[in-house]
Amino acid sequence: MVMPDIHNADPTVTPARDSHVDVLIVGAGPAGSFLAFALGRAGVRVRIIDKKEVRISAGHADGIQPRTIEVFQSYGLAERFLKDAAQVHVKAYYVSGPEGGIVRTILEPIVQGSRYPFEATLAQSGIEGLLRDAMTEDGVHVEQPKVPISLSLSADEAEPQTHSSEAYPVKVVLERPSASAPAKNGHNGPMSDAVKTASPAMGSANDTAQEVVRARYVVGADGAHSWVRSAVGIDMVGESTNFVWGVVDFVPESDFLDLRLSCAIHTKHGNCMIVPREKDMIRVYVHLEDVNVGDSGRLDGPQLGPDDILEVAQECFYPYKLSAPQGFDWWTVYIVGQRVASSFSVKNRVFIIGDACHTHSPKAGQGMNASMSDAHNLAWKLAYVIRQWAPSTLLDTYEFERRKFAQDLIDFDKIFATLYSVTPKPGDKNHERFLEASNTYGAFIRGHGVQYEASTITDIARKSVASGLVIGQRIPPGIIVQVADFRPYELHDLLPSDTRFKILILPGDTSKPKQKAKLDAVAAEIDHPEGFLKRFTPAGAPDDAVFDIITISHTSCAAANTLAIPPCLQSHWSKTFIDTETMCERIGGSLYASYGVSDAGAIIVCRPDGYVGMVAALDDSAAIGKYFAHFLHSTCVVDA
Amino acid sequence: MVMPDIHNADPTVTPARDSHVDVLIVGAGPAGSFLAFALGRAGVRVRIIDKKEVRISAGHADGIQPRTIEVFQSYGLAERFLKDAAQVHVKAYYVSGPEGGIVRTILEPIVQGSRYPFEATLAQSGIEGLLRDAMTEDGVHVEQPKVPISLSLSADEAEPQTHSSEAYPVKVVLERPSASAPAKNGHNGPMSDAVKTASPAMGSANDTAQEVVRARYVVGADGAHSWVRSAVGIDMVGESTNFVWGVVDFVPESDFLDLRLSCAIHTKHGNCMIVPREKDMIRVYVHLEDVNVGDSGRLDGPQLGPDDILEVAQECFYPYKLSAPQGFDWWTVYIVGQRVASSFSVKNRVFIIGDACHTHSPKAGQGMNASMSDAHNLAWKLAYVIRQWAPSTLLDTYEFERRKFAQDLIDFDKIFATLYSVTPKPGDKNHERFLEASNTYGAFIRGHGVQYEASTITDIARKSVASGLVIGQRIPPGIIVQVADFRPYELHDLLPSDTRFKILILPGDTSKPKQKAKLDAVAAEIDHPEGFLKRFTPAGAPDDAVFDIITISHTSCAAANTLAIPPCLQSHWSKTFIDTETMCERIGGSLYASYGVSDAGAIIVCRPDGYVGMVAALDDSAAIGKYFAHFLHSTCVVDA
Repeated sequence: MVMPDIHNADPTVTPARDSHVDVLIVGAGPAGSFLAFALGRAGVRVRIIDKKEVRISAGHADGIQPRTIEVFQSYGLAERFLKDAAQVHVKAYYVSGPEGGIVRTILEPIVQGSRYPFEATLAQSGIEGLLRDAMTEDGVHVEQPKVPISLSLSADEAEPQTHSSEAYPVKVVLERPSASAPAKNGHNGPMSDAVKTASPAMGSANDTAQEVVRARYVVGADGAHSWVRSAVGIDMVGESTNFVWGVVDFVPESDFLDLRLSCAIHTKHGNCMIVPREKDMIRVYVHLEDVNVGDSGRLDGPQLGPDDILEVAQECFYPYKLSAPQGFDWWTVYIVGQRVASSFSVKNRVFIIGDACHTHSPKAGQGMNASMSDAHNLAWKLAYVIRQWAPSTLLDTYEFERRKFAQDLIDFDKIFATLYSVTPKPGDKNHERFLEASNTYGAFIRGHGVQYEASTITDIARKSVASGLVIGQRIPPGIIVQVADFRPYELHDLLPSDTRFKILILPGDTSKPKQKAKLDAVAAEIDHPEGFLKRFTPAGAPDDAVFDIITISHTSCAAANTLAIPPCLQSHWSKTFIDTETMCERIGGSLYASYGVSDAGAIIVCRPDGYVGMVAALDDSAAIGKYFAHFLHSTCVVDA
Repeated sequence: MVMPDIHNADPTVTPARDSHVDVLIVGAGPAGSFLAFALGRAGVRVRIIDKKEVRISAGHADGIQPRTIEVFQSYGLAERFLKDAAQVHVKAYYVSGPEGGIVRTILEPIVQGSRYPFEATLAQSGIEGLLRDAMTEDGVHVEQPKVPISLSLSADEAEPQTHSSEAYPVKVVLERPSASAPAKNGHNGPMSDAVKTASPAMGSANDTAQEVVRARYVVGADGAHSWVRSAVGIDMVGESTNFVWGVVDFVPESDFLDLRLSCAIHTKHGNCMIVPREKDMIRVYVHLEDVNVGDSGRLDGPQLGPDDILEVAQECFYPYKLSAPQGFDWWTVYIVGQRVASSFSVKNRVFIIGDACHTHSPKAGQGMNASMSDAHNLAWKLAYVIRQWAPSTLLDTYEFERRKFAQDLIDFDKIFATLYSVTPKPGDKNHERFLEASNTYGAFIRGHGVQYEASTITDIARKSVASGLVIGQRIPPGIIVQVADFRPYELHDLLPSDTRFKILILPGDTSKPKQKAKLDAVAAEIDHPEGFLKRFTPAGAPDDAVFDIITISHTSCAAANTLAIPPCLQSHWSKTFIDTETMCERIGGSLYASYGVSDAGAIIVCRPDGYVGMVAALDDSAAIGKYFAHFLHSTCVVDA
C-alpha cells in the first residue's frame, strides 16, 4: 500500500519551513512524551508536537504499575516519580453485609515479590511533567499548539542508508491551530470514546504559518481519536459496551477507614472503586446503572456531573459517609469501549502507539502503563534502525509484541469490566469471580507478567539453561555483590535503558579451575574478531556501544578475585560481580537459584528494554552470535 | 569576662555598611557551611564569610560515617550525597607474611545493623559544594573572600528580647582581603598544625571596603588556626606528637586486589592505610618514619612530596605493585596533633565549632563528621534562643555535649594514632591491639555510639520504660507501618531535622480497651491548656511548630484503626503508625522489641537533632512537661 497525500495542505500557502527529522511524534500525552524522551536520550533527532495550547493540569489517567516504576528507574526517573506519587500497598474488598452496610471481606497486598511492591498514583499531568522535564535535558521540547494537517508517505521505502531525501519518506505539513478552538483543560465534561470525534486541523491556513517536516518515521501518539491513525487509514476493531462509569477526583471527608487503600466495593446498591491519590485526594469510580447508551453510542438522557457520581458512591458506601467539602478536582463519564487497531504501523514508517492503538476501561490502572510500554518497546528499535545498526525488519517486532499485549489487555479488561459493572444479585458469585480474576491476572496487571512471544529478538531455544527465567519477560530483580568493594547492587540498577544489550555472563564458581577455564574460553570466543562483540559493534563505535558485559560469578567474598575475570570481560572493575550474601546486610546470594542457573553457568542476553532475549550455555557463545545475526547488521562477513 | 575590642579597625576608614544579622559564621568549610545551611533552613538570618578566593577543589577531608549520612538524610541531603560519594563496605587487614610479602588476615564489614551500612568517601570540596547548593535554596550564600579584622562583645549580654542594639552584642568588622595573598587551592605542600599560623587580615584597608556587622551570635568555624578563637582568647590544650604522616590521593594502577576496601597494612617496612575514593581514586596514608619533628614543632630535613609518600606505600605493598600513572590529585604531610579548645564559647555569644575547637589525626575519617556534628548540635539551639522559645542557657549544652565528644575523640585518637604509627616488631601484638581498638571504638567511629551525658536536655530518669534505648544517643532506625495505607516507613524518615521535638507515643495495643483508655487519657492531658503541647508552643505559632506527635500502636494491620487515635494526636492521617510486619515485603514489626518498650507503652521524646532526650511512661505526660520546663519558655504560668 503506497499512501497518497490524504490531507493536502492549502496549495495557496507557501510553507515557511522545510526541515528534516529522524522521528516526528504527534501527541504529547504519556506515550508520545515517553517516546520523545527515550529517543532524545538515545541521541535520535526527534520532534514532538501537541494540539493542546498547554498541557493538562488535572485528572485523566493516574495508575502506575510496579513494572512501569522499574522502567522509570531504568531511565533514572523513578526517584522523582516516587517523590511526587502516592503509593497503594494494600487492596481491600467490601460487600454488602447482613446489616445492609458494607463490610470488609479481604485485605491483601497489591503485589508481592516486586522491587516496588505497590501501585503508585499520580495524575497524568504529573507524569507528563516528569517526562517533559527529562526530555529537556536532551534538548527535546514539546511544540504546542501544533497540528498535522497532511501526511504522505513516498513510494520509496528504501532502507535509510543515506541522508538523501529517500531516507525521509514521510512528509507531514504542520501548522499552529487557531486560538478559537482551545483544547479543554482542568475539569472535563461527560465523554465517551464513542461520542467524541477528533478535530485534527483546528486552525485555518489564514492565521497560522505552515511548515513541512520530512521525517524518517512518524509516530502517532495522539490518543483514542488519533488523527495519524485516521490519516493512514488504520481502523479500530472492537466494540463499545453498555457499561457507563463515572470518575471523580476529590479530597474526601469520610468516616470510612480504608480510603488510602485500593478498594473494590460490590453492593446491592451498586459498584464502586476507590484509588488513593497524591495530595490527599482519592479517585472514585462508580458504575452508573441508570444511564442508557443509545444506538448511536451516545449517552441518552440528561448530562451527568460530579455530584451525580458522588451520589452513587455515597449509596455504595452506606453506612459510611463520604463527601467532597473542597469540591472536585476532575471528573468524567465514559462508556467502556474495548478496541485494538487493525494495524500498528504502515510499512514500518508510520507507527501508532498508546491509546491510538488500544482502548479499554481505565479501572485496572493500565492506560498510561500500556502507552508508555509501547513507547519503551519501540524506542530502542527505532534507534537501532536509525543508527543503521539493524535492518528495518527489527521494527516488525514492535507490532508483533505490542499487538499481542494489547489483545491480552482487552481480553482481561472484558472479564474485569463485566465483573465490575454487573450488580451482584443475592446468591451471586460475582464477588468470588472478581477475586479469582484479580488473582489470575495479577502479574499481568502489575506488568511483571507481560511476556513477548518468540520472535527474532526473543529466542526461547535453550531456555532450560536458566530454568527460572521466562524468555520474553522482563528479567527479575536480584541483589548481587560487586567484587572490588563487596558493595551490594540491585541487578536492575546495572541494566539502564541506554539502548545497549546487556550480556550477563554467569560462569559458576570461578575459583574452581574447570569453570575458570570455561570462562577463559568463552572470553576468547567473545573477544575473537568473529565473536559477536566485534561482529555486531559498528566500526568506529566504542567497544561497549552495543554490548555491556557483566560477569556474575557464584563465588564467596573470600574467594572472589577480579583478576580471575579476563580483561575483555571487565572494561572496568565495576563490571565484575558475585552471587553471594553480603557481609554487612546479609542480603543477596540467590540469583543463580532464582534464575535456575546451575553451577555449569549460563549466558543471559537482556534486551535494551530489560526483557530476556535469550539464554545460552556458558560454552555456546556461537548461539549468541546467531541470535544477533537475525536482527543486527554485522560488520564483517561471517557465516551466521 | 567582658571582651574589649581586640583588633581595632583602622580608625581612618569609615565603614561603608553597618548591618544586623542573627548569626555571623566565619569560615565556610564543612562546619561553617553546615551551620549556615541548617540555620538558613530554620529561618534564622545568617551570613557566612570565608577568607579564600574560591572554595577548595580537591583533597582535604573525605570520610563520611554512617551517622553523618543519617544526619544528611534528616536534612534531605543524603540522596545527592550518595550519588556523588564512593562507598566503603568492607575493611581488610594485612600483615607481613612468612614469605616477606603482605597477606590478608581479616576481611570484615565496616559496620553492621546500620541504616547506611558503609563509610562513604567524598572530597571535602564535594561536601562543601553540596552544602552550598543546599543553603542557596534558603537564600544563604558564602561571601568570599572576606575576613574579620576585629571582633568585640558589648558588656550587655541581655537576653535578645528586643531588636535594640543590646540584642546584637557582637560587633565584627569585615573586609575583603587584598588579592596579593590568595588562599591556596588544589595541591598542598607540607603542613602541620604546629607550623602554620593564621593570617586573618590579609588585605589592607586601602584597597578594600570595610563593613560593620552587628550580630546576635558569631560562630568561628575557621579551622585549626581559627582567627575567631584567637580573637576571643581561647587556647588549644593538648600536644603535638612526633608522628608524621603523608597522605596522597590518586588513581592507582596495581595488582593488589583490595584497593576498593578500607585497608590497614601493618608491615615490617612500615604502616599504610588505603581508603577508596570517588572517581576511581584511592587515598593512601603512610607513616613517615624517618622524618623528625624538631623542637620547634616543625619538620626537620628536606621537604617531602607525593613521590616520597608513594615510595613508602610501595614498600608496604610488597609483593604487590602500586603506581600513580595519572599523577596525584592532592597530597599533604602532617604531624599528628591532638588538642581541644579550653572553652567552646564566650558568654554564649561567640562560639567555635569544628577544627577550631578540636584537632586530631585524620586516619579514622572523623574530621568532617565531628565538625558537621558540632554544627548540627548547635543549630537548633541557636534557632530556639533566637526565636525566643528558649532561654540562652540552652546554649550551655553545646559545649557540655560537644566538649565531652571532642575529648572522647582525642582519647580514641591517641590510642589509634599510636597503634598506627608504631612499626610492629617481631612477636609484637600491635596488630592484635589495633583490631581490639577498632572493635572497641567501632560504634563511636561510625557515629552511632556517640552519647550525650545527662543534662537539662538529656534526662536519663525513667530510662527503664524503654530499656532498649540509650538516652542521649541518636534514636535507632526501625520500620513502622502507616495505618491509613499500610505503607512501610523508616522511622528516621519521619524525624526530619526541622527543629521540632518529635513526640513518639507508643500506646501498646490500642485494640485493647485498657490501652485505648490510657491513650485517650494521655491525649486529654497533652491537649489540656496546661499540657506541654500548649504550654510550650508559643502563642500565635502553628499547633505543630515545636512538637510533632507520631503515634505508633502495637497492633496488627487487620486490627488497626485510625479512628482509635484521638484527633489531637493526629493532625493528619500520616501521623498514625503501627509496629507490625507489612503484608507485602514482610518487614517491620520489631520497634517495640528493639526499643525495649513493653505493652504498657511509653512516650519517647526525640530532640530536634535526632537524639533521645527522655522517655516517660504512657501515663506520665507530666514528666514531659517538667522536662521541657527546664529549657523552654512556657506561655502560661504553671507550676513546673
